[in-house]
Amino acid sequence: MDNDSSSRIVADLREWISAAPSGAKLPSTRSLVARYEASPVTVQKAMRALTVQGLIDSRPGVGTFVRMTRTARPLDYGWQTAALRPLHTRFSTSSSTMRTGTHGAIAMHAGYPDRELLPERLVRAALTRAARGDAALFRSPASGLAELQSWFATELAAATPIGITPPSPSDVIILPGSQSGLSSIFRALVTAGQPLLMESPTYGGAILAAAQAGVQVIPVPSGPNGPEPDVLARAFEESGARAFYAQPNYANPTGAQWSPDTASQVLNVVRAAGAFLIEDDWAHDFGITTTPTPLATQDDAGHVVYIRSLTKSVSPSIRIAAVIARGPARERILADRSASSMYVSGILQAAALDVVTQPGWQTHLRGLRQQLRARRDLLIDSLQEHAPRAHLTNIPAGGLNLWLRLPDGTAIDRLVRQCEDAGVFIAAGSEWFPAEPAGPFVRLNFSGANPGAFPEGARILGQALDS
Amino acid sequence: MDNDSSSRIVADLREWISAAPSGAKLPSTRSLVARYEASPVTVQKAMRALTVQGLIDSRPGVGTFVRMTRTARPLDYGWQTAALRPLHTRFSTSSSTMRTGTHGAIAMHAGYPDRELLPERLVRAALTRAARGDAALFRSPASGLAELQSWFATELAAATPIGITPPSPSDVIILPGSQSGLSSIFRALVTAGQPLLMESPTYGGAILAAAQAGVQVIPVPSGPNGPEPDVLARAFEESGARAFYAQPNYANPTGAQWSPDTASQVLNVVRAAGAFLIEDDWAHDFGITTTPTPLATQDDAGHVVYIRSLTKSVSPSIRIAAVIARGPARERILADRSASSMYVSGILQAAALDVVTQPGWQTHLRGLRQQLRARRDLLIDSLQEHAPRAHLTNIPAGGLNLWLRLPDGTAIDRLVRQCEDAGVFIAAGSEWFPAEPAGPFVRLNFSGANPGAFPEGARILGQALDS
Repeated sequence: MDNDSSSRIVADLREWISAAPSGAKLPSTRSLVARYEASPVTVQKAMRALTVQGLIDSRPGVGTFVRMTRTARPLDYGWQTAALRPLHTRFSTSSSTMRTGTHGAIAMHAGYPDRELLPERLVRAALTRAARGDAALFRSPASGLAELQSWFATELAAATPIGITPPSPSDVIILPGSQSGLSSIFRALVTAGQPLLMESPTYGGAILAAAQAGVQVIPVPSGPNGPEPDVLARAFEESGARAFYAQPNYANPTGAQWSPDTASQVLNVVRAAGAFLIEDDWAHDFGITTTPTPLATQDDAGHVVYIRSLTKSVSPSIRIAAVIARGPARERILADRSASSMYVSGILQAAALDVVTQPGWQTHLRGLRQQLRARRDLLIDSLQEHAPRAHLTNIPAGGLNLWLRLPDGTAIDRLVRQCEDAGVFIAAGSEWFPAEPAGPFVRLNFSGANPGAFPEGARILGQALDS
Repeated sequence: MDNDSSSRIVADLREWISAAPSGAKLPSTRSLVARYEASPVTVQKAMRALTVQGLIDSRPGVGTFVRMTRTARPLDYGWQTAALRPLHTRFSTSSSTMRTGTHGAIAMHAGYPDRELLPERLVRAALTRAARGDAALFRSPASGLAELQSWFATELAAATPIGITPPSPSDVIILPGSQSGLSSIFRALVTAGQPLLMESPTYGGAILAAAQAGVQVIPVPSGPNGPEPDVLARAFEESGARAFYAQPNYANPTGAQWSPDTASQVLNVVRAAGAFLIEDDWAHDFGITTTPTPLATQDDAGHVVYIRSLTKSVSPSIRIAAVIARGPARERILADRSASSMYVSGILQAAALDVVTQPGWQTHLRGLRQQLRARRDLLIDSLQEHAPRAHLTNIPAGGLNLWLRLPDGTAIDRLVRQCEDAGVFIAAGSEWFPAEPAGPFVRLNFSGANPGAFPEGARILGQALDS
């Protein structure tokens, strides 16, 4: 024990010393004893170690000092420039939606719902139960916990109409979040260098994952009603693509929900092209005025590869999603997942399953629907009043975002900075376009902290637009 | 609530119906009421839904039956064959080390320590605490929880000799397990199509990750003392590779630990080649008769990219590892991680940090060392007594495995099957070779369940070898 505290003090003081100027005086033994809640013997042992390491000099009766001879040479990693091969595709370190807003700011840029929208009580109870169970010490099978596979299969099966064979639990692969699933699906089903059709605009994380997988993205314009089936058919024909990534329900960022008619026409186009529809049902739990029906319920021939995440609705800390796919496609995705991360944490799977099978989960989802509706409407009203020049493209029937078209010629980056300086974080629309942005857009997320500040946020946006 | 129970019953009965023959009789309403603890009204509502869906027929006074006209056509996913592009590299769905041995079997094939070797009490307490804290509802920054970054940096810094600048917390990227880290490192630093030197034999998961990243693997022979520096230098020169993946301490599968002299020579070769050493310190917590010193402690110029995992020593359910890298290399890895999975679950990070900062953790590691030693020695003695023809290549000073050279001409696959039939699971050595196996090897893991059966396991292996 003594040994450990002493090395902890050594490590800590090393850090302090490395930042301190040569000759700086160290705190007294007495104050170190107090700071580390350690015995004087332990502290003295640490000081001896630092002396032996040549980092400090002790002058009895005077004090202990950072050694003068220490050289603080700057480190040069220039050689890496030659060692690192050029990247075929570059992607930025992190999306603006992952930034943490400064305290007190009005944050409408983020992609994750505020804590008050999460089933906090259910999550804590589920994790506490899981901590007591086998899952805490368990290595999950590669495709996931059988009970959780079954839950995802049953959810989709319950919405599957008669005449279509519902998915079985073994069609399900549990994922550590849907982002990892997208990477795997693109790598496994599209493969590097091959074309992939994507709605435009579309989810920024999918654009990133496509870049990482090295697939060639071909944008298909998609509006408030989804893509035009004819345009999609032509894109399949011209590109020879065999896959289309889309969000038929409450698309991020536009909030679009495809009509049943569009859905069935798109599915026909996909079938005719002998292709996959990669359906990202990210907002399955975020219906506001409608209830989403996945396109996957219309297919039992393995055309639809369905991704469904619980991360945003259960907790960002419980990163659990699933992909449901049939046939050889499923085997390829599983092989890629195994090479990527072997298996998914059992404790997260057990906790996710616990949350979604509690009666309180349905109650929570009903309350969430009300809250999202109130937030959405408040933000829409605030914008209409304070930022009338920002054109709402579509009143979303679900999801977490408003997608606004700004007046032509708006300098988006300057606008975003200007709002940020005034304490309002918004996200420039360019992040959601796989190619050139079709115009000046911003995305406002209405699920962040402090919805009471929406009028103020809209006012600041309106002022920035007017200036 | 009524609505939910009724859809739950519908979903459940759909599953039952899909498995039942046409015309089968459904349980009575009364028994369904009892089974689902639902009201008769709810059950009747579910039955009506199933009737509307065309799945059942009600014959009043007789009962309810699975509809006769239902077609159960077999699904054909043949079209996918044309849609799926050829894969550049094929990898199998899962390694033999991920198989779950049948109950009662002697399992020496697995890669994960048995539950009795895990700090169960610490893990459960840490998860319970984390369930109450902020981490349960928290989205972690992309590079990880600051406190956990700091812990990993401090651990390495404490072993860094004077004159070498220790890593700082910002050099650390937290990973959801080291497998994901390997994929990212190979993709980011080596890039597809480019050469990567690897010890041979080496960790099977790294071979998989290299295949997935599409890098070209060049094996460098490595024995009980590590690779020959001259041979390594020639391999760098001939291939133009700029990276070498290695396990200097307790390599999986051989158990080799490089001598300080080999370590410093290898590092010189790597420096001279202007290359990266990707140091996989997977067994940092599994020293038996020595204490491992990472090569990363000898480098502050960004040559060593260091991976350190807690998954196997803390719990397979707490999948947490870290990569420590400096300079542009670190930025590239972080960008790849962000595209792969955005961030790591906060609850797993908080729990891992909690476990490794408890005083009980050091106590646990000391006990673990004793247990591993006893298990290793028991297995070695058992093999000497019962399977003398299996040649132990090296008494490992740490790690979890013995690496055995079998007599020339041994048909390994047959041997493995024969042992399996007799209830002993062992792993064929071929999985650990990036190219052709250098001979007939098997790996025996001594950290699995039921070490008391080691003598019996050795006897069965000996008999199989003799037959």
